[in-house]
Amino acid sequence: MTKINKAACIGGGVIGGAWAARFVLAGIDTNMFDPHPEAQRIIGEVMANAERAYAMLTMAPLPPKGKLTFCKTIEEAVDGADWIQESVPERIELKRNVITQIDAAADPKALIGSSTSGIMPTELQRDMKHPERMFVAHPYNPVYLLPLAELVGGEKTSKATLEEAKAKLAPIGMKGVILKKEIEAFVGDRLLEAVWREGLWLIKDDICDTETLDDVIRYSFGMRWAQMGMFETYRIAGGEAGMRHFIAQFGPCLSWPWTKLMDVVDLTDELVDKIASQSDAQSGAYGFRELERIRDENLVGIMQTLKGSNGGQGWGAGKLLSEFEEHLWKNAPKPEAKASNEPIKLLDAKVHPSWVDYNGHMTEHRYSQCFADSADALLRLIGVDMDYVAEGHSYYTVENHVRMLDEAKLGEALYVKAQILPGDGKKLHTFMWLYRASDDMLLATGEHLMLHVSSKEGKSVPPLAAVLAKLQPLIDAHAGLALPEGAGRHVGQKKG
Amino acid sequence: MTKINKAACIGGGVIGGAWAARFVLAGIDTNMFDPHPEAQRIIGEVMANAERAYAMLTMAPLPPKGKLTFCKTIEEAVDGADWIQESVPERIELKRNVITQIDAAADPKALIGSSTSGIMPTELQRDMKHPERMFVAHPYNPVYLLPLAELVGGEKTSKATLEEAKAKLAPIGMKGVILKKEIEAFVGDRLLEAVWREGLWLIKDDICDTETLDDVIRYSFGMRWAQMGMFETYRIAGGEAGMRHFIAQFGPCLSWPWTKLMDVVDLTDELVDKIASQSDAQSGAYGFRELERIRDENLVGIMQTLKGSNGGQGWGAGKLLSEFEEHLWKNAPKPEAKASNEPIKLLDAKVHPSWVDYNGHMTEHRYSQCFADSADALLRLIGVDMDYVAEGHSYYTVENHVRMLDEAKLGEALYVKAQILPGDGKKLHTFMWLYRASDDMLLATGEHLMLHVSSKEGKSVPPLAAVLAKLQPLIDAHAGLALPEGAGRHVGQKKG
Repeated sequence: MTKINKAACIGGGVIGGAWAARFVLAGIDTNMFDPHPEAQRIIGEVMANAERAYAMLTMAPLPPKGKLTFCKTIEEAVDGADWIQESVPERIELKRNVITQIDAAADPKALIGSSTSGIMPTELQRDMKHPERMFVAHPYNPVYLLPLAELVGGEKTSKATLEEAKAKLAPIGMKGVILKKEIEAFVGDRLLEAVWREGLWLIKDDICDTETLDDVIRYSFGMRWAQMGMFETYRIAGGEAGMRHFIAQFGPCLSWPWTKLMDVVDLTDELVDKIASQSDAQSGAYGFRELERIRDENLVGIMQTLKGSNGGQGWGAGKLLSEFEEHLWKNAPKPEAKASNEPIKLLDAKVHPSWVDYNGHMTEHRYSQCFADSADALLRLIGVDMDYVAEGHSYYTVENHVRMLDEAKLGEALYVKAQILPGDGKKLHTFMWLYRASDDMLLATGEHLMLHVSSKEGKSVPPLAAVLAKLQPLIDAHAGLALPEGAGRHVGQKKG
Repeated sequence: MTKINKAACIGGGVIGGAWAARFVLAGIDTNMFDPHPEAQRIIGEVMANAERAYAMLTMAPLPPKGKLTFCKTIEEAVDGADWIQESVPERIELKRNVITQIDAAADPKALIGSSTSGIMPTELQRDMKHPERMFVAHPYNPVYLLPLAELVGGEKTSKATLEEAKAKLAPIGMKGVILKKEIEAFVGDRLLEAVWREGLWLIKDDICDTETLDDVIRYSFGMRWAQMGMFETYRIAGGEAGMRHFIAQFGPCLSWPWTKLMDVVDLTDELVDKIASQSDAQSGAYGFRELERIRDENLVGIMQTLKGSNGGQGWGAGKLLSEFEEHLWKNAPKPEAKASNEPIKLLDAKVHPSWVDYNGHMTEHRYSQCFADSADALLRLIGVDMDYVAEGHSYYTVENHVRMLDEAKLGEALYVKAQILPGDGKKLHTFMWLYRASDDMLLATGEHLMLHVSSKEGKSVPPLAAVLAKLQPLIDAHAGLALPEGAGRHVGQKKG
């Protein structure tokens, strides 16, 4: 798969900083140019948010982080980069000048994307020497989580550039959609602008306040649009007869007085005050960073939900997350456990919001999940991967025993260590400890028995030689360890 | 809490049928009048969808279903009802006549809500004798899952009516939002209409096709709007400086040529053909019922995600779901297990999409969840409820042992039976069996040990007398049962 080898971000605010986070967390070395005196602090905060979100988003193995380098000039930043993303303020002359400067200094083959929310790429590429590689890649905040980039070419942009950009976004977990024609504000911001204008009228005319308007969205069509968008949703509303029926039924509304959009609202000081104070009443109890944190957790949860949708095949952004994870697994170095007479560290996780009960404590079956995920990690270490399973071999868990010793709380970092107990590899018997990372407090122990099976033969068989060759040294290395306290115990057994 | 005692639905299509499902699943007897020859079949299908969705949505105890009665006349339908919901086709004369007829026949105190998408209530209540109790309660499809109802009063509607309507919607899991003034299309459909008009231009002008437009929504702001709406999202975009900064930055766009909304698109046959065929290309691989099923699963998952948000306090529609569940728990008859020398049935569940791996099989830790949820159900049977926990007493699980014997697949119905093993109640030791409902196949066994603790004293203490009085008869009744096969076993123990 075609991929970005080195990225440059020109402009590093909320958008540029989050592009940098996307690149760096996907393992891409990234140069950053931003003359803002506090650029390093701001980008550091965005990066921390992004890392926190990714730790909740996926159990797939992220590559080692790319190196983030702050540069003093645009020329220095673009040196050696094959994807350059411009995210400077939304003023056409400034953007055009910066892009022209990037063009002059960059490798002529490097792709140059602009984060502009609305300026047409033809305007931006006007003065470039190599305009065919310039396009709009318009992302959505938070860029490190929301996967969309609208890809829009100008008059001089080559078709190959847009296809290459789309292909290069996939390995960093993004969905590039290519628009057929350039227009100001592209597609997403056109739709958002329409809602924004209508919303301003509703507030100005005192039909409702900002909180009610938000509630109308989030308790209703917002949840539809997270998964299906507008046309697919209306297709369902049309019932068996589909889209045609829907249009026949609701088309006439177009000529009804259902909108004030023919008119543009005047943003007087009075209206700005009204909106700002309603917004304070609605959301002022939460700080800006707190709202960001809640938003990111919700986005993570929504994407994870959509990943499990449609019988496990995934849907929309969840299907994209699956594909991203598959890519991460494929490109992760095949891990191999070094045989050592120490227990093996298998899991780094954080207590996710969906893991806790109303007291904020990790709920019972999530302990089991930590151990089950650790067992999966052990299997990957010995070469039991998706290919092995596809060939008809796998380990099945037949039983487990968990002792809960202490509580884990929301957001706490956890890790698991495992000892392999004596066995022939057809049986894989482990004992594991779950620790809190901050103070190495033991929270639980798990004992786990797996059987190697052939799905073709429908019975338990020894693992294939390649797997056994990796497993046997681990079994041998742990053979000298004492049986852990707690192993072989049954439920309710007296201590000692 | 004020509640609906008996409901009537006048008109039973997709909207009216789903209102009926909301009422019936909340335990409210409901009369239905719909002259459509296939009304019973159509409403039956909506009801089946709703029941399927509720089984996934919540583990809280739904009350016994209300009785659904099909009536031959409006007069018969509204007899004895205290909430009457009108959902007939969107033609003003028809709606006005039906509402006037309802008004004449109904108890003068009964609330009368209209599901109209856009007609002003003043128009609808014109000919009523008791217009003060009439309002718009505009819901969103699917009404049994999406909780919003826009409550809009006309010139003659009393303020008390709107407050009463809002209060009566809460116990059926709905969020009533009261608009300050009536306008055509209210708030939600104004916003939707704005997007729809702009979207039609984008398709007509070939900027993108319907699938791309939907992708732009669902890979980006759709996921934001499922949780925060527009103003709260933009507040974050404004950063530390909040809403004022956002408006200062993006306000000017209002006067840019970012929209074609000043102009209304002409729905020619050509444009309808274009949209319908693009929609077929996009979604035609899924049947209408299949899309509905996927949509409902996604909505369920999104609401469950939002329920776990904000450190377990819930957010938006998820917070509402928590409140609905709390109401269900409070209003459920306090269950009491009859002491019997049979194992106790504790759980009815279905394998949820988020419970399965990529093979469609229930994943390991969800077996543990079935047993943990069953243990919670047992605790409720003996009077360990939220009040008991709030007073500082609870049972904590200290260990469990699960043996997985067979696979469970997506959508399969499961149930659990439990035997209480000898113990003093300070220790509560159980053995459970997980079965597939369709053929009573045993899928797993679980052994489970809980300790009764006082959170104030920070140690294990005997349960309070009221709980022990319910638990002891169960312990005694099971004392004569043989120790189950599998109890007291440790991981890896040889058979026999």
